[in-house]
Amino acid sequence: MRIAARHSGACQDGALAYKILPMTPIAVSPGTSHDTLLTALRDALGARHVLTDPEDLAPYLVETRRLFTGSALAVLRPASTEEVAFAVRACTQAGIAVVPLGGNTGLTGGGVPSGGVVLSLERMTRLRAVEPVDATITVEAGMILQDVQDAADAAGMLFPLSYASRGSARIGGGISTNAGGIAVLAYGNARDLVLGLEVVLADGRVWDGLKALRKDNAGYDLKQLFIGSEGTLGIVTAAVLKLFPKPRSTSVAFVGLDSAQAALDLFVFLRGRMDRDLTAFEYLPPFALEIVLRHVPGAVRPLDGAHGAYALIEAASARPDADTRAELEAALGQALEDGLIADATSGASGAQNDALWRLREGVPEAQTREGASIKHDISVPLSRLPAFLDRASAACVAAMPGLRPCGFGHFGDGNIHFNLTQPADMKPADFLAEWGRFNRIVHDIVHELGGSIAAEHGVGLIKRDELEHYGDPVGLDLMRRLKAALDPQTLLNPGKVVAAPERDPPAV
Amino acid sequence: MRIAARHSGACQDGALAYKILPMTPIAVSPGTSHDTLLTALRDALGARHVLTDPEDLAPYLVETRRLFTGSALAVLRPASTEEVAFAVRACTQAGIAVVPLGGNTGLTGGGVPSGGVVLSLERMTRLRAVEPVDATITVEAGMILQDVQDAADAAGMLFPLSYASRGSARIGGGISTNAGGIAVLAYGNARDLVLGLEVVLADGRVWDGLKALRKDNAGYDLKQLFIGSEGTLGIVTAAVLKLFPKPRSTSVAFVGLDSAQAALDLFVFLRGRMDRDLTAFEYLPPFALEIVLRHVPGAVRPLDGAHGAYALIEAASARPDADTRAELEAALGQALEDGLIADATSGASGAQNDALWRLREGVPEAQTREGASIKHDISVPLSRLPAFLDRASAACVAAMPGLRPCGFGHFGDGNIHFNLTQPADMKPADFLAEWGRFNRIVHDIVHELGGSIAAEHGVGLIKRDELEHYGDPVGLDLMRRLKAALDPQTLLNPGKVVAAPERDPPAV
Repeated sequence: MRIAARHSGACQDGALAYKILPMTPIAVSPGTSHDTLLTALRDALGARHVLTDPEDLAPYLVETRRLFTGSALAVLRPASTEEVAFAVRACTQAGIAVVPLGGNTGLTGGGVPSGGVVLSLERMTRLRAVEPVDATITVEAGMILQDVQDAADAAGMLFPLSYASRGSARIGGGISTNAGGIAVLAYGNARDLVLGLEVVLADGRVWDGLKALRKDNAGYDLKQLFIGSEGTLGIVTAAVLKLFPKPRSTSVAFVGLDSAQAALDLFVFLRGRMDRDLTAFEYLPPFALEIVLRHVPGAVRPLDGAHGAYALIEAASARPDADTRAELEAALGQALEDGLIADATSGASGAQNDALWRLREGVPEAQTREGASIKHDISVPLSRLPAFLDRASAACVAAMPGLRPCGFGHFGDGNIHFNLTQPADMKPADFLAEWGRFNRIVHDIVHELGGSIAAEHGVGLIKRDELEHYGDPVGLDLMRRLKAALDPQTLLNPGKVVAAPERDPPAV
Repeated sequence: MRIAARHSGACQDGALAYKILPMTPIAVSPGTSHDTLLTALRDALGARHVLTDPEDLAPYLVETRRLFTGSALAVLRPASTEEVAFAVRACTQAGIAVVPLGGNTGLTGGGVPSGGVVLSLERMTRLRAVEPVDATITVEAGMILQDVQDAADAAGMLFPLSYASRGSARIGGGISTNAGGIAVLAYGNARDLVLGLEVVLADGRVWDGLKALRKDNAGYDLKQLFIGSEGTLGIVTAAVLKLFPKPRSTSVAFVGLDSAQAALDLFVFLRGRMDRDLTAFEYLPPFALEIVLRHVPGAVRPLDGAHGAYALIEAASARPDADTRAELEAALGQALEDGLIADATSGASGAQNDALWRLREGVPEAQTREGASIKHDISVPLSRLPAFLDRASAACVAAMPGLRPCGFGHFGDGNIHFNLTQPADMKPADFLAEWGRFNRIVHDIVHELGGSIAAEHGVGLIKRDELEHYGDPVGLDLMRRLKAALDPQTLLNPGKVVAAPERDPPAV
């Protein structure tokens, strides 16, 4: 008996080039009916937390960009690690797939089910501990990122992981996707912030790796398996995270430069001079600033005149004597004198700093208002950023005159959101139908430059076949071996990240 | 036909409580004689680089502490990744174990062979690239750590990984053991410094993961598997490593305090105040300083009077205006005023800083001169350091009056080298015969405090059975699954880190 229709995760927007490849059909193991399973789950989790009504399921089946709609037998909302373990064991013993879901803010369709059950971590929101001396916080996977930040702040510390969806993203999702964001330059990706994990495995066992240690070489570093593997190897239920001293001085500057190459030169200059006080270096092309000023309420032009490129720079330190504004202004004064930059302004207050940040953070919203976008989340070695931006922009415009490239983002991490805004006179659906063609153009350049086609948003569903296309065969084979070792039935978030190996169709 | 005798890795010192458990005997696959294999290896590597003379083998079979002597059919010295791949393929196809070896400076017997071949990376010493803009260096696994540091320095950058054996340790060993050392507080362990790896797998395939990216979520992060797995999952042949701005100002202070608790209070105070300028916080008990002053040539008492505990503190920054000495002195002045510390001195020059560091770095040498030592390399959450030091010291002295506990080291990382110096009037061999008993006493306390029994030196052979004793069964099962997935024949550094699962003896 099959419960997941092939192609069940169909594209909502018929114009999109994506299609969800047929996944391995999910067979229920002999002797277990859905009703038996659902009854057992209702008994364990409470009837209110086993959703099966189509109306109740709907919000769990659509991802944030509305590119895909999935299907599921049920949505489970366990409230504890034990309940997660029970649910996973019950489902996988019955041959039912389990798709974990955090805040549903992922950008690659990693949480879209194609049959099976959705396991939402939304009720696991407990703050288990804050230890200011250890500089750690222990949280459950369903805690909202903003709440983690606030809990750290209340303890006089900083939890630096931060991105636009922090008000609804859940920390387990950030860990499972190794999320990046705006503080990676100084503090690293989510992976770098995790000291310990608690994980429910495919067979329902719980791995308790909730260590709060800065050094631990007692065997293989198992937590690394689960960070960034998007719920395909295990389900993160709790984590011990690093905290940092809270900055006492934070300053922001906005700079006009001639080109992406000038931005790179400035970044290298500032990195060497400001050292670990340099906490962000974000990039905007002129088009990005232009649409932010056009569409984002309250956005004010930060510099007179027009420039070939812009950078937003942040400096921060907890040192009581640190004057990061003076530090930043002195460095930029030198850069101006040396001809590295054309113009610069710095925030004179927290409110002004926030206003400068909004110019950068407003880009995705402005892009949405400007029309349809085809998006890429790529990284290259820092030295190749200018070449990437020049080549990819030229290739895309050559492929479709009138298209407006908008490569912006985390320049200091080598990470660009290389988004393409439609030509002004084109129908959005016609433009979006070209998604696959532009992926190929852009990703070919990324690949040639030694970069990654999935820098900070992960692979999910949307880039699984791109990974298959560009991935080194040895690396892909290793990924499949890991998947087979940890999830031999391919029931944890199946069809995401790595395609399942060829296998015989199950006997029905 | 068996080539490895059981118990072949016998203890040199009969007084030691360690014994090497019988390893799975290594069978040569039917149809391949040793001679055929060695001939093929000589053809590929050159006869000079396939050592079989017992005299030539000897230095490769004894580890640095001389606790074990191994046995091997041959030592292979490939000069390139292709040669490593050939050698591994040839050996594993013949059912012969391969034990990779770097600089042979490991402290847990991880490189001691028990039959099979030793694969020395000593000829793979090429610096492949330094990219100051990317802030990366690409090196082969056999490059001496000091040479990596020097190459970074010559390019105007810092490679921060550093430990006492840097003049002979090879970088591949540091990566394979996830080495720690004296710069972890500011820059992390070896794991945190690796951006990309090239690895030869058990079947001789090469995984090229030599990426130079700060953000990359294109599938599972495979490099994490090989970092810290001590050559049991693959053999690291090259790496892309992170570089950092070179500090322009570095200062060192030596502080006298009342107790380990006072050291913790000081550390928390300095971390919050100096932020990322705090680059080292090392701890010495009075006994450690006393024996350094007694045994290390040129060591000079840094402070008047005696204190209950000592800390060495380093501050560093690349900021051109940073005056880390003033910063450190101001912070310590405040600490003195607040009663956190009893006394402090700071180095007025690079030479004085080095002299203060020698007081810390001289501890292992001084311990050797003071008599036999039973050693532990443990970590606990920071807040539990004082409890650990107090409890472990009291328990060991209670178990053997006259024993002198010497818990020193990387306090700021929660990592203590909890070494026990023999009672003055005891025979060294009699003391060392108690190794197992004291391991149990100390590791029980570590385990109870949520710590690690293998903080920075790894597991190797010496702690494999301790890991089995203390390890969580689910975690151990995951480790064995990884081992089986990547090295199904158990031929890569067999018997290290994780014990092989029970299996039928091979047909002979």
